[in-house]
Amino acid sequence: MNDVVLAADLGGTNMRMAVVSPRGEILTRAKCETPANVTPQQLIDLTLNLISECRKGITEADRISGLGFATPAPASKQSNGVLSKLPNLPSLNGMNLRADLRRHLPFAISLENDATAAAIGEHWLGASRGFDSAIHITLGTGVGGGLILNGRPYRGIDGTAGEVGHICVEPEGYRCGCGSRGCLEQYSSATAVERMAQNKGLGLKSSLDVYLSYKNGDPKAAEIFDSVGYYLGIALAGLINTLNPEIIVIGGGLSEGWDAIRASAVKEIGSRTFLEPLERAQIVTSALGDDAGILGAAWSVLNAD
Amino acid sequence: MNDVVLAADLGGTNMRMAVVSPRGEILTRAKCETPANVTPQQLIDLTLNLISECRKGITEADRISGLGFATPAPASKQSNGVLSKLPNLPSLNGMNLRADLRRHLPFAISLENDATAAAIGEHWLGASRGFDSAIHITLGTGVGGGLILNGRPYRGIDGTAGEVGHICVEPEGYRCGCGSRGCLEQYSSATAVERMAQNKGLGLKSSLDVYLSYKNGDPKAAEIFDSVGYYLGIALAGLINTLNPEIIVIGGGLSEGWDAIRASAVKEIGSRTFLEPLERAQIVTSALGDDAGILGAAWSVLNAD
Repeated sequence: MNDVVLAADLGGTNMRMAVVSPRGEILTRAKCETPANVTPQQLIDLTLNLISECRKGITEADRISGLGFATPAPASKQSNGVLSKLPNLPSLNGMNLRADLRRHLPFAISLENDATAAAIGEHWLGASRGFDSAIHITLGTGVGGGLILNGRPYRGIDGTAGEVGHICVEPEGYRCGCGSRGCLEQYSSATAVERMAQNKGLGLKSSLDVYLSYKNGDPKAAEIFDSVGYYLGIALAGLINTLNPEIIVIGGGLSEGWDAIRASAVKEIGSRTFLEPLERAQIVTSALGDDAGILGAAWSVLNAD
Repeated sequence: MNDVVLAADLGGTNMRMAVVSPRGEILTRAKCETPANVTPQQLIDLTLNLISECRKGITEADRISGLGFATPAPASKQSNGVLSKLPNLPSLNGMNLRADLRRHLPFAISLENDATAAAIGEHWLGASRGFDSAIHITLGTGVGGGLILNGRPYRGIDGTAGEVGHICVEPEGYRCGCGSRGCLEQYSSATAVERMAQNKGLGLKSSLDVYLSYKNGDPKAAEIFDSVGYYLGIALAGLINTLNPEIIVIGGGLSEGWDAIRASAVKEIGSRTFLEPLERAQIVTSALGDDAGILGAAWSVLNAD
């Protein structure tokens, strides 16, 4: 018998499932759309469907020993399987995902925050492998983060740690969905790129289109990515001064345009940090891309206390 | 025989020494001025003098088993006893304090960064006792910080972690001695209070005098402390979102004026953090005051790996 685990990653758009070996090989995958206003019962049904589909991709010799589930909710011993603080999936607030799944599934179930899961995945098998301290930043629609400190995921007591997208980089800046002003997320996300493109008269463009304009030499697009890097650099400099990390891993959709962001981010970090932690901190892009979260979820159930 | 340890705290103005029991009782103390441009040899001589003085305060039954030494330098396994990055004591840069002391002292010697030592002291015996995660901020001439994460001091790989005074709170703000601009230290230190007092036409006043003016109802002094709290709140909000700590301990000379700073700091934190980590994070002032560092240094040698 080969013990394997299931790993799920629930996003606002898709839910993905995979079977993962204890060494981190993805043996099979399945995927579905996340319905708008998904109900708890729908989520359970979709999960069980994806598990059935995944079972077809493995052999009789593979024994499923657990399910790791990454969601955009805080996860900690305190949260105890209950989903909360899901701005993009409010219909699931208050659901006890672990208890509901346990009624159907005869194995260990472990919940993980998706940004922390991405950090864990990169630390297990990707860009930050072998480092004791790593900061993983996801530049997507929003800006998320996960921390590895002293060789272990750092979740904070309520599982809410890592919200680096809500570090203030402009005291009286743009209002943020979180209620604050001037959060990094308002300056260095794909959404921010799209707002800046509109403000600069480039029209309604996706962040990918703005990046393509940059590649075609558009100076306004270059200014936009300079601004993304400027504010990202300010936030990262604070994290470097505070945490003295060995590596910072930049992931998420906008990290595909890292070549446009990098110079201004590195310049800002260089002028705002002490020399020793600056020289220490490597800055790299994600090695695992979209699989970081699902692999981190697998690690969490493989290493559940 | 009672095992006891020596603990030293080297500052730019004074060096202090104490004998500390394994339970954290201070049995005796000694103190001297730190000479301007103190040389490595002078530091060794002063240390040995303070130790001789301390020995007079203990009995034949007290056996000294170690020396914990807090200095304003990074301390980590990597730094290996060598002092570096001492802006206020540059004449000691490059000194191998541990090796030099070992020639004279027949017991364990442990070096600790002074801000980390203060965090450790408060966590061992003071305000953050019993909490798994604590941020300790020292508001003095500058702004320093020490972290307790997962129940242990977090120093970072090079021992430079905790430099929360150099989190940027105003992107193009005042130039800072560290080379950056807009660092918290430029807005929420005693030095910043004094600069603001001058700028507001209050004349050359110490931060204590500005505080006394505040107590006498001077609205300009109140504005100064509001500004201190505003920027401190911005930095603390980022730390709360990033680390989800259980407690934040405010120490240092300026924390004596916490009643003048508190309201604006708490308001800013409240409007800039997520609800769950906000409700979690207690904010208190130091319980140990000046003794936090020396007690933390004692803990470090009592708990040396």
